Amino acid sequence: MLISDLGERGLLKLIQPYCLPNTIGDDGAIVHPPIGCELVVTTDVLVDGVHFSDRTTTAFDVGWRSVAANLSDLAAMGATPLGITVGLSLPPTLPVVWLDWLYQGMQACLERYGTGIIGGDLTRSSVATVAITALGAVRKDRIIKRSTAQIGDAIVVTGDHGDSHAGLQLLLDPELGQDRNFIDRADLQKHREILISAHQRPQPRLDILPILEQLHANASQVFSVAGMDSSDGLADAIVQICQASKVGAVLDRSTMPISPSLSQMFPDTALDSALYGGEDFELVLCMPESIALELVEKIGRGAAIIGQIGRSPDIILIDDLTEDAPIYLNRQSGFQHF
Amino acid sequence: MLISDLGERGLLKLIQPYCLPNTIGDDGAIVHPPIGCELVVTTDVLVDGVHFSDRTTTAFDVGWRSVAANLSDLAAMGATPLGITVGLSLPPTLPVVWLDWLYQGMQACLERYGTGIIGGDLTRSSVATVAITALGAVRKDRIIKRSTAQIGDAIVVTGDHGDSHAGLQLLLDPELGQDRNFIDRADLQKHREILISAHQRPQPRLDILPILEQLHANASQVFSVAGMDSSDGLADAIVQICQASKVGAVLDRSTMPISPSLSQMFPDTALDSALYGGEDFELVLCMPESIALELVEKIGRGAAIIGQIGRSPDIILIDDLTEDAPIYLNRQSGFQHF
Repeated sequence: MLISDLGERGLLKLIQPYCLPNTIGDDGAIVHPPIGCELVVTTDVLVDGVHFSDRTTTAFDVGWRSVAANLSDLAAMGATPLGITVGLSLPPTLPVVWLDWLYQGMQACLERYGTGIIGGDLTRSSVATVAITALGAVRKDRIIKRSTAQIGDAIVVTGDHGDSHAGLQLLLDPELGQDRNFIDRADLQKHREILISAHQRPQPRLDILPILEQLHANASQVFSVAGMDSSDGLADAIVQICQASKVGAVLDRSTMPISPSLSQMFPDTALDSALYGGEDFELVLCMPESIALELVEKIGRGAAIIGQIGRSPDIILIDDLTEDAPIYLNRQSGFQHF
Repeated sequence: MLISDLGERGLLKLIQPYCLPNTIGDDGAIVHPPIGCELVVTTDVLVDGVHFSDRTTTAFDVGWRSVAANLSDLAAMGATPLGITVGLSLPPTLPVVWLDWLYQGMQACLERYGTGIIGGDLTRSSVATVAITALGAVRKDRIIKRSTAQIGDAIVVTGDHGDSHAGLQLLLDPELGQDRNFIDRADLQKHREILISAHQRPQPRLDILPILEQLHANASQVFSVAGMDSSDGLADAIVQICQASKVGAVLDRSTMPISPSLSQMFPDTALDSALYGGEDFELVLCMPESIALELVEKIGRGAAIIGQIGRSPDIILIDDLTEDAPIYLNRQSGFQHF
């Protein structure tokens, strides 16, 4: 059955069970912001053929990824989700089952992070487009901004980078990496699954917020955390934080957060994928080193201190093990939307 | 110059001056909800070729209309705007000047209603799509819902209906109405302009909120207001309110809110346009009759009591002046998005 067969009211009936109770039915949805909190709002648009395609992404994964991208933006601000609105444009020739799977994917990701759909709009278009706006709440003194990194801060990443990009490459070209004969078949399959899953089901790092809250509560001195998420690539995130904070950074090649799967499957391009691949949806956070050490320990696998904020405006990646010249990072190699 | 020539960073530079200061630059924007207020969130998606086209709508008007539609949803909930986010998908072949005019139109409408852009996303697509989410604040005891209309309530419309639909017809077929020889040329031109302007520059009725607030403050008894906006047509609004409130309504043909321009230019179809045309962005409100009379007087031109909420589930339009049978209203004739 196609969307055009179902009609508008049939579509709304299909969507309604996926929305939080008592939110649908008026011109707008009501949200109760917690007392004393600021509200954070963030918008992301995903377009068929640009951000996803049938070749690499099921409708379920489109739903998951579109929600994950928005929740990651909330996490990057230190905010806990209150709900999302979904503005959908769909071709009438799309099968209804596609829409159903899209919502199942969105709901799966939303439920995992304890939130839901509170409103939206549904309209016809020649190209499927998912425009999500997420609302979150954050205590005023816990807002994470890009512009407040301090000289001397340690730079923490919450997990590995480059896996999502490598996963996309594997989806686009299933032959890729099959020639790596030194890996046994079972290992190869395991690495493939890890990388593809990183692309299809990214995990927004909302789990970092209670850990940070605990560090704030236990700290002998007040500290501030600067940062953003790495959705447009690790290099992009570091450059943006440095530019917004008017500082520079020195990164250490040996600490780059590269997973065993990535380094074994793509040894030659692993560093480039980690720096410029994007869509890893990890957090890049700057804070005093003593706090950073505690944070990395509490997060565990994948988290690392990768460098330090410095006074010089340059952002350089140095390699203590080799004689290679340092790499100067910039945003040029990141994903460009136009 | 085309959007593809400017590149992503050039585009962001072009858009930034249109955003409220201190809102752009992080993964999300910070909003300060007023203490003691509920937050209202509403989303509308406008698609090129579905909701607007170069034949009938300049980029400025696309911007104005897309903002107006969202602010109207806030007004319909009783909420004062706090800001909007704009999720834009654009073909790279679009001229940059189109984007500039779009933002000028959005800003003109936003400024008129004392609010602004606080965030958004910009991406490539084959079809121009404007997804706006508006945030507003409303006191808990002032929320306007569809489901709370009471038997005996008077039904108020805040202005004329059908003009927007007639204006669209005139834009699609400029010859229309030219044969109405009994109207002099100057009058004809004036009526045309009124109808076309109703389509191109709809006015969300946020001005009604302070009037309602004054009525609440002066009322000897607490009263509640139910309602919604008439963006999908007057008949649709009344039917939706009645269905949500589990009541019916009796409407009076002689009080239908039809402007002199509409009745003179389109005497045969004026009633149909008023009932089913849509996109008038007026409010349809239900409240005790004594309050309704005061409200209509304070709003002035165009506002009217058009009927009463009744116990019978039917929604009928009666005509006391003729012997015509009553018309039973339903939503079937309204605008269907699929």
